[in-house]
Amino acid sequence: MHQGIRNMEDYFKLPIVLRAKELEEELRTGATKPFKKIIKAHSEDCHALGQKPITFLRQVLILVTYPELMKDPRFPEDAKERARVILAGCNNGSIGSYSENSGIETIRRHCAEFIEHRDGIHSDWQNITLSPGTSGGIRNILQLLAWKLNGKDPGVMIPKPSFPLYDACLQELNMHSVPYFLNEKKNWGVDLKELNKSFDDSTSTCTLRAIIVNNPGNPTGHVFTLQNIQEIIKFAYNRSLIILADESQQGNVYDGSRFHSVKRVMIEMGPPYCDIELASFMSVSKGYIGESGVRGGYVEVVNMDPDVYQMYVKSLVCPSSLGQAAVHCLVDAPKEGEASYRGFLMEKNEILLSFKEKAKLCSEIMNSINGITCNPVQGAVYAFPRITMPAKALNAAKYENQLPDVFYTFQLLEKTGICVIPGSTFGQKPGTWYFRTTILPLEEEFGEMLKGFREFHTKFLTMYS
Amino acid sequence: MHQGIRNMEDYFKLPIVLRAKELEEELRTGATKPFKKIIKAHSEDCHALGQKPITFLRQVLILVTYPELMKDPRFPEDAKERARVILAGCNNGSIGSYSENSGIETIRRHCAEFIEHRDGIHSDWQNITLSPGTSGGIRNILQLLAWKLNGKDPGVMIPKPSFPLYDACLQELNMHSVPYFLNEKKNWGVDLKELNKSFDDSTSTCTLRAIIVNNPGNPTGHVFTLQNIQEIIKFAYNRSLIILADESQQGNVYDGSRFHSVKRVMIEMGPPYCDIELASFMSVSKGYIGESGVRGGYVEVVNMDPDVYQMYVKSLVCPSSLGQAAVHCLVDAPKEGEASYRGFLMEKNEILLSFKEKAKLCSEIMNSINGITCNPVQGAVYAFPRITMPAKALNAAKYENQLPDVFYTFQLLEKTGICVIPGSTFGQKPGTWYFRTTILPLEEEFGEMLKGFREFHTKFLTMYS
Repeated sequence: MHQGIRNMEDYFKLPIVLRAKELEEELRTGATKPFKKIIKAHSEDCHALGQKPITFLRQVLILVTYPELMKDPRFPEDAKERARVILAGCNNGSIGSYSENSGIETIRRHCAEFIEHRDGIHSDWQNITLSPGTSGGIRNILQLLAWKLNGKDPGVMIPKPSFPLYDACLQELNMHSVPYFLNEKKNWGVDLKELNKSFDDSTSTCTLRAIIVNNPGNPTGHVFTLQNIQEIIKFAYNRSLIILADESQQGNVYDGSRFHSVKRVMIEMGPPYCDIELASFMSVSKGYIGESGVRGGYVEVVNMDPDVYQMYVKSLVCPSSLGQAAVHCLVDAPKEGEASYRGFLMEKNEILLSFKEKAKLCSEIMNSINGITCNPVQGAVYAFPRITMPAKALNAAKYENQLPDVFYTFQLLEKTGICVIPGSTFGQKPGTWYFRTTILPLEEEFGEMLKGFREFHTKFLTMYS
Repeated sequence: MHQGIRNMEDYFKLPIVLRAKELEEELRTGATKPFKKIIKAHSEDCHALGQKPITFLRQVLILVTYPELMKDPRFPEDAKERARVILAGCNNGSIGSYSENSGIETIRRHCAEFIEHRDGIHSDWQNITLSPGTSGGIRNILQLLAWKLNGKDPGVMIPKPSFPLYDACLQELNMHSVPYFLNEKKNWGVDLKELNKSFDDSTSTCTLRAIIVNNPGNPTGHVFTLQNIQEIIKFAYNRSLIILADESQQGNVYDGSRFHSVKRVMIEMGPPYCDIELASFMSVSKGYIGESGVRGGYVEVVNMDPDVYQMYVKSLVCPSSLGQAAVHCLVDAPKEGEASYRGFLMEKNEILLSFKEKAKLCSEIMNSINGITCNPVQGAVYAFPRITMPAKALNAAKYENQLPDVFYTFQLLEKTGICVIPGSTFGQKPGTWYFRTTILPLEEEFGEMLKGFREFHTKFLTMYS
């Protein structure tokens, strides 16, 4: 067996998630439990948790799939116009034909306009490639770096805590994963000292090629400050690292925070920083769109050696045309004056406002509970509360042969039906314990969940103190 | 740079294809040429060449994307029933949610039924995984084998001539590609002697892990006989190779030939052959469906070590749900008595009948031309005619610093606008020259093309003899 794949953690088969599935099945077949349903606060799957699809996007998808519907007056003109633009970019006007490996040109051009509008800085459409989503996009770039340098294995710096798919991808490619810890006390920001230490500690085992940055962040719900981004850029420049910026949740920012794209910041910093190699990833799986199933995203690559970029484009497989069409809807959404504008804005704002309210509510409630502390949820759709575990609970966990955070989340699940992910899945500093909850459950359920959580935690403390 | 990727040939950037694009642009901007348009006989993109999508499939896609259309009486009940089945398999009933890595269970179950019906032999749905198409599927399996064994690099036997994406995939994974030549005199069948020679010659450079079999075949248009398949199975057993069977064109078989799946043949052969490890690949990109853009396919894996199979499933990324829905339409097509049946059958048969007629016409015309010989097109959508090159033409090619087949196909393109791919792209025995044409251009254009080809070849012979 390929050792890298053997080592890969199976994120979808986490014991806590498997147990939640079992419990759901037990409930379905009539078992009596202290709860009536499983609250899937572990899942990042927006639509699975009840988020509604954006009507405009779905209309464009069906119009490109079944062009006869163009004649149907119930579909708005702007959706039809987008469909015509997309189909004009397809070979022979069919969404069923292959696109170029890098994606449909007209969609790539619209991605560049979208980025330009976001940053106020030029974006070259030829630097944009369409991807089957962020994890696929990151894999395609990492693969370019998966070769020995100076006789040593290649390595990549990844944040901790972070989404385990980065690790899985590095394992698959037989690359070293070199963690750098985010600083909880600075709203999960980066510390230059930590970055340097992490780099220096790894030099004997591997040659570092890149640093992965996740902003807004999973599982921590942070949004990096401008200063944070500047520090990362300086560090990457000093250490000759490529920045891989997972910015797929850039549309979800709350709490007065602002999203700063790595691209904009480095260009504004001027030479020598504006010449750093960067790949930034965006997708339609997250945010107000939440279309994980259609598999669509884009990658903007800047400052890559043209020869290497050509190799990169060559190594791509053309992504789903329908996923590409969904990306088009993200980057060319209805504009003021267009037929769908009002309805689109209402749907979008309803989702984003609900995220915002749940984000605020979540950290407020968490911080009001004895023994739980939680940074504000500034972006993305996650909270990462810290649990102060009483000594008796630590002993009980040891007795069960479980890590304390795993013990805690299993207790929570068995007592309340609430499924969250133990912090150790994402990486946490030794001796600290967390869990990740999403803010995706719909409002009513989310309220219930916070209430259930508070009750559980109070009883947990009583039991183990 | 990753050496494997550097070595990958860029199939989409073949000089002949780039030149065809240039010529198309020149025509568009008013240049005078000896032809009015480019005939894209190089392309495998069915819809790009005018093949119509299957209405039933597109209806199912729009119904799952926009369930409100379920109420629309213009869409038939069987399409709605398929859409309901698919959505019932999606988390929370939305095509926008993630599926399991291995695909939506209900679709996997229907794939197994489809295979059972094809072979008359049990197929376990848990052995089926859904893929983003054949090339992605093959890559996922090859990756499992991409590690050194007995201190030697891993290698895979691949047919020559063959589709260059197998080579590209092996290069990407840093695996050795060990060619075995198909026998033109036996309708591009396999020779046991050649298989053994190819295996034995490679043992000093790599450890062979698998053999890729392509049936019906690209670029040769062959369909293997039962005896051929049996020989491959015996060979794979004797040499402990896994068989990777690209059977994605199994639906396109003409000329009285019959498709024999490797799975059926090995099971029917009984022990020890029925225990061979096999992965078979199917997709919706080819055949009467031709939906290359939606990126959907399935893989059936049998006899794989359960531990390795688990790793394989773990390494998958969930493919596009819409691609999966398209696979559902392939494996659960309208049945007799259902509302869409008649219309579906008419569309399907029209496409397949046209393929059949063009297949026959193509080899007939080719063989009637002096200096061209061509095996019957038994399956898939390709002919691979052999050109006997006059000595003067060989000299002219040398003078142009081109391989003779490249010289020939460039001449053909410049004089007639017909774009075909030189045989050297696929691999050919030294000193023999071929080109690949598809039979995808629509009938009228295809007729024109054969006529234009005959005229060109006659002039070519006159000029160089």
